[in-house]
Amino acid sequence: MKPVKVGVLGLGTVGGGTINVLRRNATEISRRAGRDILVTHASARDLDKKRICNTEGIILTTDPLDIINNPEIDIIVELIGGESLAKDLVLIAIANGKHVVTANKALIALHGNEIFAQAKQKGVMVAFEAAVAGGIPIIKALREGLSANCIESLAGIINGTGNFILTEMRDKGRDFADVLSEAQALGYAEADPTFDVEGIDAAHKLTILASIAFGIPLQFEKIFTEGITNISREDVSYAEELGYIIKHLGIARKTANGIELRVHPTLIPHRRLIANVDGVKNAVLVHGDAVGDTLYYGAGAGSEPTASAVVADIIDVVRALTTDPENHVPHLAFQANAIADIPILNADAIETAYYLRLNVQDKTGVLAEVTRILAEHSISIEAFIQKGPQQNDSSLPIIMLTQITLEKQMNAAIKSIEALDTVVGTVNRIRVENLG
Amino acid sequence: MKPVKVGVLGLGTVGGGTINVLRRNATEISRRAGRDILVTHASARDLDKKRICNTEGIILTTDPLDIINNPEIDIIVELIGGESLAKDLVLIAIANGKHVVTANKALIALHGNEIFAQAKQKGVMVAFEAAVAGGIPIIKALREGLSANCIESLAGIINGTGNFILTEMRDKGRDFADVLSEAQALGYAEADPTFDVEGIDAAHKLTILASIAFGIPLQFEKIFTEGITNISREDVSYAEELGYIIKHLGIARKTANGIELRVHPTLIPHRRLIANVDGVKNAVLVHGDAVGDTLYYGAGAGSEPTASAVVADIIDVVRALTTDPENHVPHLAFQANAIADIPILNADAIETAYYLRLNVQDKTGVLAEVTRILAEHSISIEAFIQKGPQQNDSSLPIIMLTQITLEKQMNAAIKSIEALDTVVGTVNRIRVENLG
Repeated sequence: MKPVKVGVLGLGTVGGGTINVLRRNATEISRRAGRDILVTHASARDLDKKRICNTEGIILTTDPLDIINNPEIDIIVELIGGESLAKDLVLIAIANGKHVVTANKALIALHGNEIFAQAKQKGVMVAFEAAVAGGIPIIKALREGLSANCIESLAGIINGTGNFILTEMRDKGRDFADVLSEAQALGYAEADPTFDVEGIDAAHKLTILASIAFGIPLQFEKIFTEGITNISREDVSYAEELGYIIKHLGIARKTANGIELRVHPTLIPHRRLIANVDGVKNAVLVHGDAVGDTLYYGAGAGSEPTASAVVADIIDVVRALTTDPENHVPHLAFQANAIADIPILNADAIETAYYLRLNVQDKTGVLAEVTRILAEHSISIEAFIQKGPQQNDSSLPIIMLTQITLEKQMNAAIKSIEALDTVVGTVNRIRVENLG
Repeated sequence: MKPVKVGVLGLGTVGGGTINVLRRNATEISRRAGRDILVTHASARDLDKKRICNTEGIILTTDPLDIINNPEIDIIVELIGGESLAKDLVLIAIANGKHVVTANKALIALHGNEIFAQAKQKGVMVAFEAAVAGGIPIIKALREGLSANCIESLAGIINGTGNFILTEMRDKGRDFADVLSEAQALGYAEADPTFDVEGIDAAHKLTILASIAFGIPLQFEKIFTEGITNISREDVSYAEELGYIIKHLGIARKTANGIELRVHPTLIPHRRLIANVDGVKNAVLVHGDAVGDTLYYGAGAGSEPTASAVVADIIDVVRALTTDPENHVPHLAFQANAIADIPILNADAIETAYYLRLNVQDKTGVLAEVTRILAEHSISIEAFIQKGPQQNDSSLPIIMLTQITLEKQMNAAIKSIEALDTVVGTVNRIRVENLG
C-alpha cells in the first residue's frame, strides 16, 4: 500500500519528538500499521531555529495553511498548542476532510464539543491520546479497554510539575516556594507556573477523562479546582504521621445526585499504589463496576513519551482510513447522539473526608468548642493530633481527620471555628480520599 | 442498526460474568457501541446446573456446534477453557466466517499461530484481551497504545495465585506450603496448583505478551520457567533486609543477541511500583524506547474483571464488523507477513543479577573459597550478609547479591560452590532485576 502522508504543525518539543520517533521506529511502525507513515510537510514559526529533530526530506513552511490546504496530505498533526490559532487550524483541516491528531488538552477541553461535532459531520477522526497523561494510553484504556464497564470513578495524578513539587516537599522536607524555584530552574515548571500549580492544566485533562468515562459533554467550566500553593511542609509531615501522602488529584465520581468533578490536593493512604507515584510521573486510577480498580502509570510529559501517544494515534487513524465513519470509535467513547447531560454537582455538594489543621490558643476548653461545632454540623472525627507549641509561636496546632461529610457542612463548620476567639488564623483544610 | 448476535460457549465463572455484564450494562454498552449486543445462544455441559447468571431469553444447548453452525450468530465467545475441544470449536467457527472472542490463554499460547493464520485467511477477528491479566487492557495497550515504540522489555505479575502466596509469605512470615493450603481453601488456588505455582500459567501469558511486544511467533516451548515452590520464608525475609521484595515475574527482554523469555521468582527493589502490587492483583511493566516505563495494574482474574475484557473485545469486534480485513488491527500487533523470527535465547544465555543463599560450616576460610569461585567465573558481589547459626543447625547461612552475570557462568560457579566440603546442601539462587 502507498505511504500515508502526514503534515505536522509545530516543531517544538512534541513536534520534534514525533518526527524523531516516526523516523527511528519507521520499520517497527510499518510492520504494525501495514504501510509506511511519512511526514512530508511541517510548519514552524521560525524556520532557522535549531531543532531537536532531523527535518531532512520534509518540506518546511511558516504557514500551517500551506499544509492544511494541501490535498496530498492525509493526516494533520496539530502540535502548536494554545487554543485560538490551533482551533482555527483544526477546524479548517476538518473542513478539508483531513483526519487530525493533537496533543492539545486546552483545545480539546475547551473546544472539543464543537470540534467533534464538525468532525462527525465530515466523517473524519480527531485523536487526542497525547492530551492526557502524555505517553500513558489512558484515553484508549477508558474508551476501548474498559468499554464494558459503567465507570464509577477515576482519580489521577495528571500534572507532573505538581507531583514533582509535592514529592520533593515530602522526600526532603522542603517548602513549596523553594521546590517551585528548583522546578523552574530544571525546566519542569514554567516561568508562570499558574497552569500547573493552580490545577488548571489538571482540570483540562480531567474534563477530557470525565467526558470519556461517563459519556457527558466536555465542560471545563464546571470543575471545582484548587491548587497546591497552600500546602505547607507541616501538612506534608502531619499527613505522613497519620499514614497519608498528599497528591494533587483530578477526581471524577458518579454519585446518585450527579457527577463530582474536582481537582485539589488530596490525602491518600500511603499503601495505595497511586500514593507511591513520585516525581514527574503520572498515573490514573479507574474504577469500573465490572473490572474494579485498574491503574495506568507512566511519563505524563516530555518529548518522546508524548510523541509515543501522538504516533499511536496516527497509526490508529491510518487503520481507520478506509473504515466507514459510522464504525469509528466515537471521539468521546460514547456515540455522539448518546452523550447524556448528567448534572455536574457544584462544590457545596461534594462528599469527602477532610484533614483540618488549625492553631489554637493554649487554653482549656478550646478543643471542646471546636468539636462541638463539628458535631453540630454532623461531622465525625476519625483521628486527632495535638502538637506542642511551635517555634516563634505560642499557639498550638491541632490536626484532625474527619469522616466523610458534605462540603457545605464543612464550609459552615470552618466558618464557625474560625470565628472562635481562641482560634488563631484560618483553618487549613485538605480533602481526604480512601481510594480503596 | 440491528443488534449484533453473540453465542457464548461455556457458562462457568467467566461465561456467567460475561452474560451478567452484558445484561447489567446493556444501555451503557449500546451508548458506546452504537448498537445493541445480544447473547442469543449459549452452551454448557450441564443445563440443569445452578448458574451465576440469568439465562432468561437465551437459547441453551449442550452442543456448542449448534451455536457455531448457526448462521444467525455474528460472534462466538469461547469460554470453555482447555485446549483441544476449544481449538476444534474455534477453528470451525472461523471456517464458518464468525469472529471469535476468547479468554483462553493456553489456546492462544499453544495454538495461536495456527488459529490466526486461519482467521486471516477468512478475514475474521480473533480477540483475546481476557487471556492475559484479566481485566487489565494490557493487550490493547501493547498492541495499539504503545504502537509507536520499539518495546525493549516487559515484566509482569501475571498469576494472581502466585502473587497471593508470596504476599502472604511476606506479610505474615508464613511458609509456602501453609499459604498454599489456605489459597486452596479460599478458592484462589486449584486442587492441583501446578499450573499456577510452577509458572506454566504465567508462561502461557508471557508467550502472548512477548509475541505482541516484539512481533515474533507464539513459542511457549522456548520459555525458561521456574516456579515459586522453592522460595522459603527465610528468602523472603533476607530479601526484605536487603531492600527487595520477591515476586513471580514473567520477563521478556530484547538484547543484542536475541530475546530473553523467562518466568521465575525475582527480587525487585522495594520502592518500585510493581514490587508493591499485592495479593491476587496483576500488573505489567512495559518499557518502550519512546515512552519509557509504563505500568498497568488491576484484577488479573475473577468473573467480572475477566468479563470486562471479554465484553470490551466484543465491542471492538462489533466496531470492526464492516471494516475491510486489511485494516483490522493485526492479531499479534504486527502484520502477519511482518512477524520476525528473532532468536529466543536459551536459559544459559540469560543475563541477570542473583541472590544466593547457602549454608556453610562454621570454619575460617570458607567465605574466601566461595568468593574465589565467584571471581573465577567473573561474578562480582554487590551485597553480603552472614547470619549466626540457625536453630537446630550448626551451619551458617550466607546471603549474597551479585552483579549482572551470564546464567551459564552462574551455573558453573554454583556447581563448584556446591562441591566444596565446607558448603552444606545446595545453593539457593533467585534472580534479581532492578526494573529501574
